[in-house]
Amino acid sequence: MKLLVINGPNINFLGIREKGIYGNEDYAYLKDMIKRKAEETDSVIEVFQSNHEGEIIDRIQAAYSDGTEGIIINPGAFTHYSYAIRDALSSIELPKIEVHISNVYKREEFRHKSVTAPVCTGQIAGLGLKGYLLAVDALIV
Amino acid sequence: MKLLVINGPNINFLGIREKGIYGNEDYAYLKDMIKRKAEETDSVIEVFQSNHEGEIIDRIQAAYSDGTEGIIINPGAFTHYSYAIRDALSSIELPKIEVHISNVYKREEFRHKSVTAPVCTGQIAGLGLKGYLLAVDALIV
Amino acid sequence: MKLLVINGPNINFLGIREKGIYGNEDYAYLKDMIKRKAEETDSVIEVFQSNHEGEIIDRIQAAYSDGTEGIIINPGAFTHYSYAIRDALSSIELPKIEVHISNVYKREEFRHKSVTAPVCTGQIAGLGLKGYLLAVDALIV
Amino acid sequence: MKLLVINGPNINFLGIREKGIYGNEDYAYLKDMIKRKAEETDSVIEVFQSNHEGEIIDRIQAAYSDGTEGIIINPGAFTHYSYAIRDALSSIELPKIEVHISNVYKREEFRHKSVTAPVCTGQIAGLGLKGYLLAVDALIV
Amino acid sequence: MKLLVINGPNINFLGIREKGIYGNEDYAYLKDMIKRKAEETDSVIEVFQSNHEGEIIDRIQAAYSDGTEGIIINPGAFTHYSYAIRDALSSIELPKIEVHISNVYKREEFRHKSVTAPVCTGQIAGLGLKGYLLAVDALIV
Amino acid sequence: MKLLVINGPNINFLGIREKGIYGNEDYAYLKDMIKRKAEETDSVIEVFQSNHEGEIIDRIQAAYSDGTEGIIINPGAFTHYSYAIRDALSSIELPKIEVHISNVYKREEFRHKSVTAPVCTGQIAGLGLKGYLLAVDALIV
Amino acid sequence: MKLLVINGPNINFLGIREKGIYGNEDYAYLKDMIKRKAEETDSVIEVFQSNHEGEIIDRIQAAYSDGTEGIIINPGAFTHYSYAIRDALSSIELPKIEVHISNVYKREEFRHKSVTAPVCTGQIAGLGLKGYLLAVDALIV
Amino acid sequence: MKLLVINGPNINFLGIREKGIYGNEDYAYLKDMIKRKAEETDSVIEVFQSNHEGEIIDRIQAAYSDGTEGIIINPGAFTHYSYAIRDALSSIELPKIEVHISNVYKREEFRHKSVTAPVCTGQIAGLGLKGYLLAVDALIV
Amino acid sequence: MKLLVINGPNINFLGIREKGIYGNEDYAYLKDMIKRKAEETDSVIEVFQSNHEGEIIDRIQAAYSDGTEGIIINPGAFTHYSYAIRDALSSIELPKIEVHISNVYKREEFRHKSVTAPVCTGQIAGLGLKGYLLAVDALIV
Amino acid sequence: MKLLVINGPNINFLGIREKGIYGNEDYAYLKDMIKRKAEETDSVIEVFQSNHEGEIIDRIQAAYSDGTEGIIINPGAFTHYSYAIRDALSSIELPKIEVHISNVYKREEFRHKSVTAPVCTGQIAGLGLKGYLLAVDALIV
Amino acid sequence: MKLLVINGPNINFLGIREKGIYGNEDYAYLKDMIKRKAEETDSVIEVFQSNHEGEIIDRIQAAYSDGTEGIIINPGAFTHYSYAIRDALSSIELPKIEVHISNVYKREEFRHKSVTAPVCTGQIAGLGLKGYLLAVDALIV
Amino acid sequence: MKLLVINGPNINFLGIREKGIYGNEDYAYLKDMIKRKAEETDSVIEVFQSNHEGEIIDRIQAAYSDGTEGIIINPGAFTHYSYAIRDALSSIELPKIEVHISNVYKREEFRHKSVTAPVCTGQIAGLGLKGYLLAVDALIV
Repeated sequence: MKLLVINGPNINFLGIREKGIYGNEDYAYLKDMIKRKAEETDSVIEVFQSNHEGEIIDRIQAAYSDGTEGIIINPGAFTHYSYAIRDALSSIELPKIEVHISNVYKREEFRHKSVTAPVCTGQIAGLGLKGYLLAVDALIV
Repeated sequence: MKLLVINGPNINFLGIREKGIYGNEDYAYLKDMIKRKAEETDSVIEVFQSNHEGEIIDRIQAAYSDGTEGIIINPGAFTHYSYAIRDALSSIELPKIEVHISNVYKREEFRHKSVTAPVCTGQIAGLGLKGYLLAVDALIV
Repeated sequence: MKLLVINGPNINFLGIREKGIYGNEDYAYLKDMIKRKAEETDSVIEVFQSNHEGEIIDRIQAAYSDGTEGIIINPGAFTHYSYAIRDALSSIELPKIEVHISNVYKREEFRHKSVTAPVCTGQIAGLGLKGYLLAVDALIV
Repeated sequence: MKLLVINGPNINFLGIREKGIYGNEDYAYLKDMIKRKAEETDSVIEVFQSNHEGEIIDRIQAAYSDGTEGIIINPGAFTHYSYAIRDALSSIELPKIEVHISNVYKREEFRHKSVTAPVCTGQIAGLGLKGYLLAVDALIV
Repeated sequence: MKLLVINGPNINFLGIREKGIYGNEDYAYLKDMIKRKAEETDSVIEVFQSNHEGEIIDRIQAAYSDGTEGIIINPGAFTHYSYAIRDALSSIELPKIEVHISNVYKREEFRHKSVTAPVCTGQIAGLGLKGYLLAVDALIV
Repeated sequence: MKLLVINGPNINFLGIREKGIYGNEDYAYLKDMIKRKAEETDSVIEVFQSNHEGEIIDRIQAAYSDGTEGIIINPGAFTHYSYAIRDALSSIELPKIEVHISNVYKREEFRHKSVTAPVCTGQIAGLGLKGYLLAVDALIV
Repeated sequence: MKLLVINGPNINFLGIREKGIYGNEDYAYLKDMIKRKAEETDSVIEVFQSNHEGEIIDRIQAAYSDGTEGIIINPGAFTHYSYAIRDALSSIELPKIEVHISNVYKREEFRHKSVTAPVCTGQIAGLGLKGYLLAVDALIV
Repeated sequence: MKLLVINGPNINFLGIREKGIYGNEDYAYLKDMIKRKAEETDSVIEVFQSNHEGEIIDRIQAAYSDGTEGIIINPGAFTHYSYAIRDALSSIELPKIEVHISNVYKREEFRHKSVTAPVCTGQIAGLGLKGYLLAVDALIV
Repeated sequence: MKLLVINGPNINFLGIREKGIYGNEDYAYLKDMIKRKAEETDSVIEVFQSNHEGEIIDRIQAAYSDGTEGIIINPGAFTHYSYAIRDALSSIELPKIEVHISNVYKREEFRHKSVTAPVCTGQIAGLGLKGYLLAVDALIV
Repeated sequence: MKLLVINGPNINFLGIREKGIYGNEDYAYLKDMIKRKAEETDSVIEVFQSNHEGEIIDRIQAAYSDGTEGIIINPGAFTHYSYAIRDALSSIELPKIEVHISNVYKREEFRHKSVTAPVCTGQIAGLGLKGYLLAVDALIV
Repeated sequence: MKLLVINGPNINFLGIREKGIYGNEDYAYLKDMIKRKAEETDSVIEVFQSNHEGEIIDRIQAAYSDGTEGIIINPGAFTHYSYAIRDALSSIELPKIEVHISNVYKREEFRHKSVTAPVCTGQIAGLGLKGYLLAVDALIV
Repeated sequence: MKLLVINGPNINFLGIREKGIYGNEDYAYLKDMIKRKAEETDSVIEVFQSNHEGEIIDRIQAAYSDGTEGIIINPGAFTHYSYAIRDALSSIELPKIEVHISNVYKREEFRHKSVTAPVCTGQIAGLGLKGYLLAVDALIV
């Protein structure tokens, strides 16, 4: 199975940014963790990160024709206002799971609203980096 | 490991109620599925259901002293207004995962707000009955 | 024809509670009135009352398999916040009529919103105890 | 007994307009149905329709001195903004029942608010054309 | 000086409608009172009343070319929603005074907002029928 | 092709009313311009104007059976609150284009909301009188 | 007759402050104008001004026992938030007229709400300094 | 004097739940404290607790006929949404005091609104367990 | 023990102002009542009243260094908007109790919000003049 | 005449994305259609598309000095939140027309608000791909 | 150059009040710091503080005629509601800079809105006591 | 000292865009001004501008490891919605000052809210290009 993990802005700063909220593991650790999961599940998982909304949209559109069978997306702060990413996700008819490392519902008011969740299959929030692995399980099995 | 699954109002009507949203499997199927998961993971998982807010609060309180090590709760419609269940969850310092079978963010406005999510560890929504199994994985491993 | 009348919290206090709003007739009078209507229309009408949200949900669910052909419900104050009763009503595909004794649109702001009305067939409000009889007529004929 | 039925804008387009919502019967059918009810109940029932807010106000005012003993009004879309009709209804101390053919609480947000309901005796909504007959029963008996 | 007094819907029901709010004098009394004021001030004052929004707009437009030098308008309930009357008033560059017999700020929330006041010169509210005479004084002297 | 242009309140005051917003050309000029367009496109275009909401509804309803093949409507201020005109438009299954001479999105807050646009095919705003001609082109070709 | 005119903050800066809104006449001119009106109407009119909310409340309370028969108050910016002045006015059962020199409904949003108007008899706004004289007429005759 | 103390959901978890907010004393301590107060004041005070909204309503209704002379109620989280408890309290014409152990106005936004306070005589908040004793004093003396 | 009672605007008009709400006893009676309470409890209680926000802030600041051990404050209408008094209270680390004579939650919407309550220890509302004595008890014992 | 057409995010997915809303023609078809229009009208029309907000801003700024005489922009989802594009458009004093293929007023609430429309000359919405051609006509003739 | 620094309520409690927010330096230190700045820049700087809104308005008005060439104002909590100070500032055509010691945008919601900022030249917030010196630099050089 | 100045979208159009608001000096002038300030203060100040949100985030992240000791940021229109830039700023523990050339509080409503200000040290607004120099002073000395 071929999956695509998309991480939005500032997620590359894991382990640097607000450790109290996101934990101590850094972005390399996350990529590694997903790599091991791919091996375990005998699947192909690309991990893509960008701070640029436009690049994320381009990447989602590319998934339309590159054989991707499922998308796991943590849109970072774009979750809360990027209707453009929402439209991109909406145009691709694949299973899509939104992941948030922290429990966004415990944090600032503006993080309670996701403009992308309504066009995804589902959402996993607050379960730390493990959320990505659970999303893979949800898509693969 | 000892876990407790709490299902709120109308979840016992799975397979009867709005199949377009909740799927065709009935409540017995869900209980069975969780039972098999318990066996696979060598854990004890109690499944409790009630249409009564007070009984759910009583059950959460009982978990304080009965050795429960994690709670998986699908509060059903209570998700959106039961501050009393929120307070009960908040008084118990166990890992707690809120599960929704359907993607509540795709549905009526009132289902977008969870009053219980901020006092849980995290939330899994929209991944069907499988969401319960992922929640067990999140707690157990 | 087999009908079920469900009365929510405090409706058993008719004739005691706020007579200026609900009139002088007590709850026994209401039950009697409905009993006579059943006789006149040659139908079976059960009248159920509870102050417990959970019991009301249980009763609605029971109607799924006990041959009930129509529900008349005055959810009392639950009208304004019980999404759990809404979900229960929504899961049962019978004709359902919401009845309010007083004109809720003349009263406090919070009484203007019904969370249950959108899942009922219709609503009768402000026509006193007679509203129950009109609802029976609406269902029976 | 002398009653007045007032139908607001576009109700003359019954059977033409949005049949999925209002049903297949046309306006002539509605008038006929009310005529038969008048005969059955030995009462005089005038049926008035206008797309003009001012004509509706004029007609309500006329009811002040023409012996009308009760008003049944379906203000159509005026329900949601005509404070002028509200004031007219409020100036006439007769029993007044607001009728809606469809269940307005199931439809667009703007149809959930009635500016006229607070000055009527009560409201019947969602029970189809039969709502008019129930309103007659409410007033006559 | 040539003035025009425009009275909106239901003001012809003065002395009939809600006497506790509008007083006991009827509409004939108001017209008479203004007639006497015209004589006293040696001015020409037309008094126009309509329950029809369109007729009020037509009358305002006519004032553009009939020599009217000032408008006194009590738009009744149209005050709160008739942007069409607002536009008509706005298109005529005469002094315009909005008059309300009752103190609208003491009454229902919806009466606190005037959509016409921002395009008038000023507003007099709550001073009873006398408000019309004060408005004449404001325009004439 | 047979088209109907409906102009709402105060549009007959073009060239008189707020020239800074609506330009110097008067209503006769607009009618003439549309007449020439009809000739050029070999179509029949009736131009109707009224300050009366009821007359506009009547005219829309008449279009149901008079062979009209498309409606161009500038509801003027009714755009912002006439749910009755909305319902009338909605009941007629013809292509309908809403036109505004000025850019309503640059003006007062209340002009940003159109209650009629959701039941039209589309909207043209801010392109001056030319907007009517573009609407004709949109319908005809 | 004994009247009291109370002017709130910054009204002493008439003729200095925003002349486009308040005109060129200064505060001495206003006091003079009221003085002449007192002579003409053979009444006693005290004119009081303060930038201090507390002093205005003290002055209103003093009016309770000093023979004042009517109050004309222009609370200036206190109009929009001083619930304390509102309470003071409300405790004195005299006729009270709120006056605003400018048409507050044409200006910033915050000036559209008066917290004092609901406890006054009425309000005169937008008629310039003349508003004070009209208020005297309203109280005296 | 015969008083009734009603404690809502989770108050039985005093001393367990969020000690930083509610203090270290447990529910037994609270009951004891009230018992001593009853002895000191020579009164009869029943202390009732339930996590079930319906049981609380039943208990309030029972107070109608069991000689209770005053109610002290801490509705816990029901304070913020149980219109059903509000209606029950409202139907009983006894002095009723709402008590909150913590200062709800310092906590989450949703705790600032009490739907029950408007139908009680008064409210005591933020004074710890002592609030119950002060409420007894308020009722007894 | 040394306590300070601060009364805000219009509380000196007790027994004059709205007796239906505040009762018949006047301000001298209140001061007397507190004086007797001081004697009974062997404490020193100063009672301060002002209609001036600034004087109340000055008095609160003075309490910082004059040995005051607790503050009882009824900010009157300042409760609802004086963030300046809030800041003053917040700067003094003494126990502070907000008292309202009437049940503010039964009255106008604007009285439901207290900007000072979040910086006080607690609040007593609706228990009449007795509220002050209960506050003394809360602070002293 | 030299015109610039700017298409925002996901518009390159025409014919792929939500065909029910946007139709079956793809982006190449749109470009072709505009090319033919350029030939017909003897004008130069560049068509630019980007999923990147920054590139759109850069392109608008470039138009300041490259001889562009008019801009047609369909900002896609950026319509609803890109104040940065709004500022860019606002800084260029050319005629600018906002085009939407679908009738945004019929769709999700968030699509009803355009932050760019107030700084454009006008808007064409809901007229399909033809909207671009009408916009060219509006600019050219 | 002659400048005026105005400090609103509770700023005299610097170093006492909430040191975590405002720092350890007291008000004397602030005055001293400004005095030294005056000497360095060879200017005259008066520092005025009051807890009384009325005194602040009086002082601003006095600046109209005492040769003041610039105002630096920290309105304290008045920032958020004193429209009276806003009007006073607005009436004086001098450069005016609003200063806040703390970053108000990091604190309670109510501190995010300044009613005075729109009538000042600019605002400096969150830069501690140094903000006053930067404001002097902004005015002087 | 090493500082970084980041300018967001359209700031490169200074002197072109809305001169009435931003003044006549162009972007080269601003860069020059900052360069001179760097020389005067013996510091290193890089000036970066981009219309691309992603590039701004990348530049902020780069500052984490390139020795930058303070950031001055004018996010332009991103101020009002870029939660992604907010998160980037928040992840870097340097002093950060938000600068706005114009007084955003005098302009459109949407410019009153800054999503980035709460994660900066402070804000300087409305003091023109000089605001950048004051920000340098705030960081350096």
